[in-house]
Amino acid sequence: MTIHVEGTDPYAWPYDGRLAGGHLALVLAGWDAGWTSRCVSIDEPDRCARDLAVAVDALGGLVVRLAHTGAAPQALPVDAITIAVPGIDGFYASALDDLLRTQGRTHLLVAGHGLEAAVHSTLRSANDRGYECLLVTDASAPLTTDLEAASASTVTMSGGIFGAIGTTPAVLRALQPVPTLVPSTPQEA
Amino acid sequence: MTIHVEGTDPYAWPYDGRLAGGHLALVLAGWDAGWTSRCVSIDEPDRCARDLAVAVDALGGLVVRLAHTGAAPQALPVDAITIAVPGIDGFYASALDDLLRTQGRTHLLVAGHGLEAAVHSTLRSANDRGYECLLVTDASAPLTTDLEAASASTVTMSGGIFGAIGTTPAVLRALQPVPTLVPSTPQEA
Amino acid sequence: MTIHVEGTDPYAWPYDGRLAGGHLALVLAGWDAGWTSRCVSIDEPDRCARDLAVAVDALGGLVVRLAHTGAAPQALPVDAITIAVPGIDGFYASALDDLLRTQGRTHLLVAGHGLEAAVHSTLRSANDRGYECLLVTDASAPLTTDLEAASASTVTMSGGIFGAIGTTPAVLRALQPVPTLVPSTPQEA
Amino acid sequence: MTIHVEGTDPYAWPYDGRLAGGHLALVLAGWDAGWTSRCVSIDEPDRCARDLAVAVDALGGLVVRLAHTGAAPQALPVDAITIAVPGIDGFYASALDDLLRTQGRTHLLVAGHGLEAAVHSTLRSANDRGYECLLVTDASAPLTTDLEAASASTVTMSGGIFGAIGTTPAVLRALQPVPTLVPSTPQEA
Repeated sequence: MTIHVEGTDPYAWPYDGRLAGGHLALVLAGWDAGWTSRCVSIDEPDRCARDLAVAVDALGGLVVRLAHTGAAPQALPVDAITIAVPGIDGFYASALDDLLRTQGRTHLLVAGHGLEAAVHSTLRSANDRGYECLLVTDASAPLTTDLEAASASTVTMSGGIFGAIGTTPAVLRALQPVPTLVPSTPQEA
Repeated sequence: MTIHVEGTDPYAWPYDGRLAGGHLALVLAGWDAGWTSRCVSIDEPDRCARDLAVAVDALGGLVVRLAHTGAAPQALPVDAITIAVPGIDGFYASALDDLLRTQGRTHLLVAGHGLEAAVHSTLRSANDRGYECLLVTDASAPLTTDLEAASASTVTMSGGIFGAIGTTPAVLRALQPVPTLVPSTPQEA
Repeated sequence: MTIHVEGTDPYAWPYDGRLAGGHLALVLAGWDAGWTSRCVSIDEPDRCARDLAVAVDALGGLVVRLAHTGAAPQALPVDAITIAVPGIDGFYASALDDLLRTQGRTHLLVAGHGLEAAVHSTLRSANDRGYECLLVTDASAPLTTDLEAASASTVTMSGGIFGAIGTTPAVLRALQPVPTLVPSTPQEA
Repeated sequence: MTIHVEGTDPYAWPYDGRLAGGHLALVLAGWDAGWTSRCVSIDEPDRCARDLAVAVDALGGLVVRLAHTGAAPQALPVDAITIAVPGIDGFYASALDDLLRTQGRTHLLVAGHGLEAAVHSTLRSANDRGYECLLVTDASAPLTTDLEAASASTVTMSGGIFGAIGTTPAVLRALQPVPTLVPSTPQEA
């Protein structure tokens, strides 16, 4: 059985349909006091990000938050691994790649604070490293509303060179546990 | 004496005014057959890039072209160092950082093919690594004209977290050798 | 079915017994004119290395040779991928990790020129990156005979923190294709 | 004025004689509970390491301790920066290189726990990255006494491809502040 997130652009994500907790991670870039304070509005994106964290955690996925340049990490409703990163790109000079690889996390949901900056740089690096990435746009808070649409377009252009984009409700539906088939009780006559 | 490129945004580049050949490099991302073929128009950007290459070379600066994923490098009018890079970001899994560091190149002019992709990813990584970067916009060919303005805005937002942007004519003026003062010949009577 | 190389130290290599061409690579460090010229004797080690290359190639494994700091690569009897590396450690600022990962090569036979230097540094980095490594001692030429034994001991100490060591004949036996079972012909009476 | 540490091998360290606090760092690898417990004897090496830490700190040098794979860092008598590292090599997937570069630390004293392992791997990587390194042998605790001499020889071979080796007393003498010249008081008659 393969599972894809509905409505992702420019291709049905993940490419292989292997959407399972064991190789999934939610990577929240800019998840610290510094990047949070620079975003125009975080209420709705953070509600989405927290919902994703709960769903990924429930499925056995890994929840990773990035705290940049020594800033204090922001709270999450589930246990998360905090990775200290010295730059804007979460992979630069950090243990993020090593963590994801040794834990076998090949499929990444990427979101967080600073859509055009921390989120985008981390997404770009994840793609270079061969991870299959979905940028969850409504769970990502931009620094300025002017560039929000362009940041998404930069991902979808050229057939998905930086992965695909999708929305939180669609991801949540795809991550729901497969319902156990209950055999229908034969009706008595 | 300090030198800055005129009209750079959002700050006078370079921040330290130390614009000299010895620590300068021109990094041309996407300088291969593959990225070239994906750009909407390369005539004008390439003319600018070649002019920059000549000027940087004349000043003792380093000219570096990135050939991605095994593609053949494109020509340049001066000697250039070709760096093979396996991804979109020129720093990922390549010798670029090592080259620039061991040669003492702290100030980078960044341009090339794929403004939103190869050029931008390389620029972002260069900033994380502490290089002082100028994105030369008119020497960078976009993949699509829709995102050209946004790609520049992403650099200038937030006070220059990814460096500054500038234009080729302004860079060329700043790179001109300081004119030797020629003593005026006393006119004979 | 699991396969191990006989006589490896300090544990039966590979740990998972999954010795198959599809995820195997032979990494020959120092496989260039520079490192070759610094070794005390390369005749016997190179004969072993060439035998390994043929056997790995025949099984569908990847043969990778490292050419350091611009030196010309040395010949091999099979097609090999040449990786240019700027330092002594083959993983530093090179495409080696990216190549092995994207090709799914998790099991490495490591050998080459400069046992204490290029070979050892590359082996150490491979282990940090999670590759399952066998240092093939008789296919590795030392810079000085004084340190040959110690270089091997450094690998086997502490329960194999840098992998295991083994010999070429044992590897060749383990890499032999599984013989097709020929049904015995019933003897006529 | 240039300063060298006395008796270093195989060359007078540092090569440039620029031994000043501003670009100096002491890097203590394996400075955590895990590596400490694996060493045969740490009393004398740790006394040396602590003396080095005090001297480097007094001169304005940086003291960096590496805590590997989540283990708790060991104490030091001065303020130190703790870098979390996921592997044996302190540079792999950590912020060490970024820290040293952005702080301008080009000259490294390297010591710690696990001479053949954590200390040596970190030293090898530091050299590939262009740092000028001195392995302080008596401040480094081996995992086994058998390999202690060989680990030092591996550094000194081949003209110092991994830097030089030296001892704590010689380093301490070289790091002493230059005595202020006190003019001799003219003796009264």
